[in-house]
Amino acid sequence: MSRYWSAVARGLTPYVPGEQPKLAKLVKLNTNENPYPPSPLALEAMRAEVGEGLRLYPDPNSDVLRATIARVHGVDAEQVFVGNGSDEVLAHAFLGLLKQDAPILFPDITYSFYPVYCKLYQIDYRQIPLDDEFAIRVDDYLRQPDGTRVNGGIIFPNPNAPTGRLLPLAEIERLLRGNPDSVVVIDEAYIDFGGESALPLVRRYPQLLVVHTLSKAYSLAGLRVGYAIGQVELIQALNRVKDSFNSYPLDRFAQAGAAAAMADRAWFDSCRNQVIASRARLVAALDGLGFSVLPSGANFVFARHPAHAGVELAAALRERGIVVRHFKQPRRVDPFLRITVGTDPQCDELLAALREILGKCG
Amino acid sequence: MSRYWSAVARGLTPYVPGEQPKLAKLVKLNTNENPYPPSPLALEAMRAEVGEGLRLYPDPNSDVLRATIARVHGVDAEQVFVGNGSDEVLAHAFLGLLKQDAPILFPDITYSFYPVYCKLYQIDYRQIPLDDEFAIRVDDYLRQPDGTRVNGGIIFPNPNAPTGRLLPLAEIERLLRGNPDSVVVIDEAYIDFGGESALPLVRRYPQLLVVHTLSKAYSLAGLRVGYAIGQVELIQALNRVKDSFNSYPLDRFAQAGAAAAMADRAWFDSCRNQVIASRARLVAALDGLGFSVLPSGANFVFARHPAHAGVELAAALRERGIVVRHFKQPRRVDPFLRITVGTDPQCDELLAALREILGKCG
Repeated sequence: MSRYWSAVARGLTPYVPGEQPKLAKLVKLNTNENPYPPSPLALEAMRAEVGEGLRLYPDPNSDVLRATIARVHGVDAEQVFVGNGSDEVLAHAFLGLLKQDAPILFPDITYSFYPVYCKLYQIDYRQIPLDDEFAIRVDDYLRQPDGTRVNGGIIFPNPNAPTGRLLPLAEIERLLRGNPDSVVVIDEAYIDFGGESALPLVRRYPQLLVVHTLSKAYSLAGLRVGYAIGQVELIQALNRVKDSFNSYPLDRFAQAGAAAAMADRAWFDSCRNQVIASRARLVAALDGLGFSVLPSGANFVFARHPAHAGVELAAALRERGIVVRHFKQPRRVDPFLRITVGTDPQCDELLAALREILGKCG
Repeated sequence: MSRYWSAVARGLTPYVPGEQPKLAKLVKLNTNENPYPPSPLALEAMRAEVGEGLRLYPDPNSDVLRATIARVHGVDAEQVFVGNGSDEVLAHAFLGLLKQDAPILFPDITYSFYPVYCKLYQIDYRQIPLDDEFAIRVDDYLRQPDGTRVNGGIIFPNPNAPTGRLLPLAEIERLLRGNPDSVVVIDEAYIDFGGESALPLVRRYPQLLVVHTLSKAYSLAGLRVGYAIGQVELIQALNRVKDSFNSYPLDRFAQAGAAAAMADRAWFDSCRNQVIASRARLVAALDGLGFSVLPSGANFVFARHPAHAGVELAAALRERGIVVRHFKQPRRVDPFLRITVGTDPQCDELLAALREILGKCG
């Protein structure tokens, strides 16, 4: 604390990202990166940016990138907002759309950055418990029968994090029908690993904002690009906030690399299909070791072992050079490990280490 | 406007950046970019980032970059905060340090993003008039004789923008002595073009935050890197805001390129010295054409012609393929053009066009 801090700075409880270890030899299964490299076309596009052009500001509106994203998803470029990672996109959505008089709603077990944004922007919120199977119950988010607006907005990831559980599209539509006056943000960071995106609903629901990232399925976590798609009036709010915060949020590498990566559909499909196949294989093997694994629509699995605490398993894996994520959180989350789906050989290393740990302790 | 926007989004008046023309053939003297390319060592460092490593998140704390900046300026790495361009650094300083009960102070003619940040974060402010020579009068920013704290903070660029006028270091120290309880942010985006930095004062003044950018003197506007230096407790406030907004604001290219550029002192000195020499030459020639040119410590000049309106000159230059900046602002600023110092040949093109325009109209 310092007498120079603002009251906002004093009140913050910052987000803690997963470790980015500086040892290159670790098997890194802790921050849900893609185990496959980015598209070679994206690498080529970024290489082409190395040069004198860097002395000039980038396009403040990222027109080429937004046009590419629009083409891929079949929307207009004016319906696309891009940011410095989907975290920046989410931050602007909290300030520009979700800061309302009524509290916003999100699950009690979800992306732990949401309450952090709320503190940053002084937004009131309610955390709605997941059900016993760690699923989102849409009924808990619907307007009351008396028609009062009970929330200032709704946000959750689909698939949810860190559970990996997917909410079917029909349920999302039911949520939208029951919340015509509230902005609903669906954070689809992990949707490309087998889920059904809510993007087709954007046309019919003016309150729907869908957020994507290039950090996961596009293997570009190191480049920091995310985007949102919605009807134009929602996108305009994000643009107003962005143009009041930083005119040039995406550097030249980010704009060029992301556009080329989005355009390379073959690479995208190949990488995500490999991850989906490896996930099935990993889940089966973890089942075989006695783990309970939640059904996952993401590039990670959320798993607990009936006989071993999550924190101990994480520490034992770390000793063996394998990093997974354990959340120091309430009772229901504490037993779990969140394990990123790596390549099959990486998963095999993980499984071998777990066999050793379980054998030793069991 | 939309019923889905937050009150904040409704109330914004976003910043309007200078045009980034998509025609490559223009002589671009409108957004104060450096006419020389970035350090070859920086280009090499960025080229080395093109590869599989992009699938991994960057270092959230930019340790290597911060250590390099600290070494260059002779401070500790804990005294360095880095952001996605100095605009992001400034935004975090507004929210984390300058959002106070009392209004903050900045000049009436200055970087036009400051009032935009104030609206974004709902910060009260007072604009203090520059004197008749467009200089900052420190007396106007001092505490009242009764000892009351009259401001919640102070911010201005040095050299000021768009005037280019430099405040001597002794005056900045007088400002700091007179404001022991207020955070004072000196935005030194243009300090490398001949000004004396306030950085040596950081050790003695815990309320001083100095902000720099790599967009100007380092020729890396396209990379988006800025930084702040202050005592640790000020930097901690910025870190708290940053970690509540976006854990990974600098991508891998930005971290590697900026560190290599900062380390290449010879390139930096050579480029800025060329700009300083071209500025002197340009000012003399503009004087010769009848312009009044404010004394500039920056890589731009702020000039007016007694017989020609700024907006008309800007339009006539644009017709001749030369872009300069004219601000549609109050009476005192309206007659001026802000002209970036280009290479000598670019300045010669500008001067030839001005000669033609003045001859035709005069």
